[in-house]
Amino acid sequence: MTNPVVQKVNPMLTEERAKASFPVEELTYILDGGKFNTEKRREIEELVTKDPNFEHPPIQFMTREQQYSLAVKKALLVQQRLKELDMLDDPYASYFFRRIAMPREVSPIGLHWVMFVPTLMGQCSDEQRERWLQRALNYEIIGTYAQTEMGHGTFLRGIETTATYDPSSQQFVLHSPTTTSIKWWPGGLGKTCNYAVVVAQLHTQGRCHGVHMFLVQLRDESTHRSLPGVVCGDIGPKMGYHTIDNGFLQLNSVRIPRENMLMRNAEVQPDGTYIRRVSNEKLTYGTMVFVRSLIVSDAARGISEAATIAVRYACVRRQGEPSSPGAPEPRLLDYPVHQYRLLTCVANCYGLWFASEVLRDLYFTVQPDVLEGRTERLPETHALSAGLKAVGSNRGAACVEECRRCCGGFGFSEASGLPKIYNDINPACTYEGENTVMLLQTGRHLLKCVERARRGEQLAPSDAYIRSRPTPQPKLAGGPLTADLLLGWLRWRSLSMLLEVSGRFNSFIEQRQAWADAFQAVSRRLTRCAEAHCILYVGQAFLDSAKAAENPKICGVLTSLCRLFLLNEVVSGAGDVQLSRSDLARCQDAIDSLLTELRPNAVALVEAFDLPDRMLCSVIGRYDGQVYEAMLQWARQSPLNATDVHESYELYTRQFLAGRSLAKL
Amino acid sequence: MTNPVVQKVNPMLTEERAKASFPVEELTYILDGGKFNTEKRREIEELVTKDPNFEHPPIQFMTREQQYSLAVKKALLVQQRLKELDMLDDPYASYFFRRIAMPREVSPIGLHWVMFVPTLMGQCSDEQRERWLQRALNYEIIGTYAQTEMGHGTFLRGIETTATYDPSSQQFVLHSPTTTSIKWWPGGLGKTCNYAVVVAQLHTQGRCHGVHMFLVQLRDESTHRSLPGVVCGDIGPKMGYHTIDNGFLQLNSVRIPRENMLMRNAEVQPDGTYIRRVSNEKLTYGTMVFVRSLIVSDAARGISEAATIAVRYACVRRQGEPSSPGAPEPRLLDYPVHQYRLLTCVANCYGLWFASEVLRDLYFTVQPDVLEGRTERLPETHALSAGLKAVGSNRGAACVEECRRCCGGFGFSEASGLPKIYNDINPACTYEGENTVMLLQTGRHLLKCVERARRGEQLAPSDAYIRSRPTPQPKLAGGPLTADLLLGWLRWRSLSMLLEVSGRFNSFIEQRQAWADAFQAVSRRLTRCAEAHCILYVGQAFLDSAKAAENPKICGVLTSLCRLFLLNEVVSGAGDVQLSRSDLARCQDAIDSLLTELRPNAVALVEAFDLPDRMLCSVIGRYDGQVYEAMLQWARQSPLNATDVHESYELYTRQFLAGRSLAKL
Repeated sequence: MTNPVVQKVNPMLTEERAKASFPVEELTYILDGGKFNTEKRREIEELVTKDPNFEHPPIQFMTREQQYSLAVKKALLVQQRLKELDMLDDPYASYFFRRIAMPREVSPIGLHWVMFVPTLMGQCSDEQRERWLQRALNYEIIGTYAQTEMGHGTFLRGIETTATYDPSSQQFVLHSPTTTSIKWWPGGLGKTCNYAVVVAQLHTQGRCHGVHMFLVQLRDESTHRSLPGVVCGDIGPKMGYHTIDNGFLQLNSVRIPRENMLMRNAEVQPDGTYIRRVSNEKLTYGTMVFVRSLIVSDAARGISEAATIAVRYACVRRQGEPSSPGAPEPRLLDYPVHQYRLLTCVANCYGLWFASEVLRDLYFTVQPDVLEGRTERLPETHALSAGLKAVGSNRGAACVEECRRCCGGFGFSEASGLPKIYNDINPACTYEGENTVMLLQTGRHLLKCVERARRGEQLAPSDAYIRSRPTPQPKLAGGPLTADLLLGWLRWRSLSMLLEVSGRFNSFIEQRQAWADAFQAVSRRLTRCAEAHCILYVGQAFLDSAKAAENPKICGVLTSLCRLFLLNEVVSGAGDVQLSRSDLARCQDAIDSLLTELRPNAVALVEAFDLPDRMLCSVIGRYDGQVYEAMLQWARQSPLNATDVHESYELYTRQFLAGRSLAKL
Repeated sequence: MTNPVVQKVNPMLTEERAKASFPVEELTYILDGGKFNTEKRREIEELVTKDPNFEHPPIQFMTREQQYSLAVKKALLVQQRLKELDMLDDPYASYFFRRIAMPREVSPIGLHWVMFVPTLMGQCSDEQRERWLQRALNYEIIGTYAQTEMGHGTFLRGIETTATYDPSSQQFVLHSPTTTSIKWWPGGLGKTCNYAVVVAQLHTQGRCHGVHMFLVQLRDESTHRSLPGVVCGDIGPKMGYHTIDNGFLQLNSVRIPRENMLMRNAEVQPDGTYIRRVSNEKLTYGTMVFVRSLIVSDAARGISEAATIAVRYACVRRQGEPSSPGAPEPRLLDYPVHQYRLLTCVANCYGLWFASEVLRDLYFTVQPDVLEGRTERLPETHALSAGLKAVGSNRGAACVEECRRCCGGFGFSEASGLPKIYNDINPACTYEGENTVMLLQTGRHLLKCVERARRGEQLAPSDAYIRSRPTPQPKLAGGPLTADLLLGWLRWRSLSMLLEVSGRFNSFIEQRQAWADAFQAVSRRLTRCAEAHCILYVGQAFLDSAKAAENPKICGVLTSLCRLFLLNEVVSGAGDVQLSRSDLARCQDAIDSLLTELRPNAVALVEAFDLPDRMLCSVIGRYDGQVYEAMLQWARQSPLNATDVHESYELYTRQFLAGRSLAKL
């Protein structure tokens, strides 16, 4: 969008590209999961790039309302094209189509296919499916999923919205009894959707049966006006996500037919009798695991975008004292500190990328078992996905922000595209389970693992290193600091921390503290254990993927990058346990060496992600490296530049400069 | 603005307020620097709050252009009122007046009084002062300071803009020879100012004499139109700072009279002869130190605002599993992890607050000496201010972001006021010297200190702990973990790290590496040394201020908070050196105890900052704690809610739902 035409490439970038020690294209295939996928993705990206319907001015110059309106148009257009291209049933194709058509622009109809349709699929009776699912799939109606309330988040039973059954009319009365019960946050709820699945406390025959789901029509299907009793709207601007109308919904005794309760797992009969069917709640865990693996992968993608921008910029930006008088200023990438900042972000990116793939594979392995009732690996999968979601989104936000700051002032300009990436991946730290809460879920699982290890029970593969007794600290001194050795040390660290916390926890229990109190008492340290456990998983996934690369050059560079990742974790995690000063010094030396070794591959490592300019939307991260001309061109489009003299001059400044009082205006 | 009327106070907050163990008002006096200041500040805040001219709808609902326009109006109005109130010469009064009138809204005329006027004062000849200074002080002209170019930041000699003297017309020709030479970033340059001090390379009689300053008129004084050859405008939207028109300036052979070169320190005579006068460049260091102390103080203020919001919200927000069935959900502040997250931010806030005061006092102590040519303490002051600027702004941004995330989803909403605080203090990590560059300046100074210590020379007070040989590690085991003991440990840590890096540096030098190369080789570790040194300074300032409190209750709570700060640094810095596992465990235990001890004072500690609702602009941080009603009321004002049915429905969605093609639109 921002950089439609690739100009003559900046020679400084060409020079850096020539330094690659490995075939970049082959690494791209690995990242995409095969050459076939890469080619398919590129075809799709080409389709969108060539389609004039998806062209528009940079969204950074639009108001939020304009951004929303454009996003509605584009989101609908995407659906239409996907249908025309017969790609709707191809998740890979439609994912990449959406991504290039709406780069980091959250879709106002996203919840329709992420939550509304899947909920109808999972929670409708067969008859209900018949009635609604097809309409939803055909986009005759657009829906969202309304669970979170203003005053109620993670604790589902705290939901206040009521659905009271009235047998006389055979209707449910949906009601928001308090301000805190107003539905808050659902995407598309404010303006876009005309239906919602509403989660509410079911009351019938004088009893409350807990939360259930109800299909509620919000807006008239022909006028789109909100229906009587329905008060809904946009919740106002946020730090990011300008393109989506996260909404609120207040229900004032809104009546819906009895049949609008989603009845796969429970039913209210016409007379009000409540019947619960056997349900497999564990099934929903599966979806959760999958969604979390997507969050980890999106964090990695966020870093890949930010790092591509920051690394390219570091190649063309000159800054600071020249090494000799008359020489040009050094490039940012020439500074070891800058190399460290950027390359550790790149290493985190690859680590999270591979970890998200392993987690997704784990989901696909475990899910069929779960469907058949074999739930042994569910706790492990659940704990891993929770912790990785937290570690991934935290790292994602931190690395994107680091890349942003690496671009100096330009990183603060919307022209860089970096603020948008930060604001777009940052909310993942909060939604789908706030990160601290997530880490505590992982921590709880780890405590149980220690207990099981003590009883001699077998643990799941990724927990198998957990024992009830400490193991000796692997020696870092002496031989080479291989990735396996470092990973062993991180494993030891994770276990050591866990045993310490677990010991503390048990001593509280022995002092007859309640389980919940003992848990809270160790919670702060437990979050660190959970992080250590997840980092270990990321490191393992990274190393396994590096080793799996067939091309020895790629295997080599990935292993080096993996070592940088691991060393950085050892050094920054040394304070959690105890690492001798000599070991610490060895690790620091090894980091220095790796920076020198990896620097020539910096550009190649980010360009392996193969992100087109259209995706990056960045003036300073352009493929051609022609940063400054593009920056000027971009700035000239700023709405403040529409006129030479801004209206505020006539309104205020003229009077003020003339010494006249503003109050008289 | 957002919360003009204090409603009935939420009893959950009243309850928390009653827990304070010390007189909050007295701590406010300490933070303000005396009761007199507190009262004066409140009077000023009252003046603005009651003035209907400063009332307007929440700026979060405005476009950037509207925000800019409003900011121009308010900034001019502030000047007018300050003049009417005869407060222009009272920096304390005018600071607080501006702050409450424009809370976290960067002023479009800010550079006029921060850079333009001081530069005229310092760089004009007496005659030039006569001509321009009074006009600037009277606001007959509005100016900015244009140094940074698109391609040139910290390295002043790299500036490309030229000022070539033409003796035939007795004019300078100001010119931007390249795209990279275009002035970029100066505040108010885009639209607001009609004059600028432009930094350019002076050429006369065929020789270049390096960078000098020139007063350039940009816009016509009666029409405000940009003058021939002057191409200036807004550089476009940024991550924050929406209220200011950071601008660009391209000069196409613009002619200015010879007399417009600022001639205090150098002169070009009518025939083109260049004469340099004796100048005291060290003087400008003073201003830099002062500006940096303000950045540290602003970081502390940013955290104080974010922490006030997050702590209050943590008192009224219920979230998670109740401790027993039927009980209400726990408050956020009941969770130890949450206490840790918030209270360490509060501790950082107090630490930086006191450190910025000590730094400012140091400036006032050293500056008179410098003016009289005694520059002994200048290196220390310069190094400290650089490092504290970096540590302060880094911590400021990190703590504000932590507070923001502590508010869950609402922290992502602009309603919380938190995104604005983040985006407002974040740029301080980059401007006035990028933080890594700043830390390296401090690091360079520390290396020199080791060298001086080796030669037996005396070091400045804050460097005095630096020796050429290691000292034994203070024992944390055994006695109580007092603040002095912890500070001693941090001192030891800082010295240990520094000696290690210095040893490494010297070995490179002995291997005949160039100084600059050896410096780069240790630069990554040196930044950590600089951080450790600055943290030590912050800890010392914190402890000294805590001890200085006359009221024993205040002394007690501040000492505890200081210990939390120090323990947290010991624990997180343990990886830089080597701390035994038992010492580490003791420190962690002490942190747990302190959280329990400080929790009842959490609200009191943030409310001692005495921030009125008008300053916080936060729906969830209101004094009255009536969060949810206010949230609904706020959201209803969202521009997307202006109509029930958004125009995008008629434009796109209706056709789409009816199955008609969008391409035909």
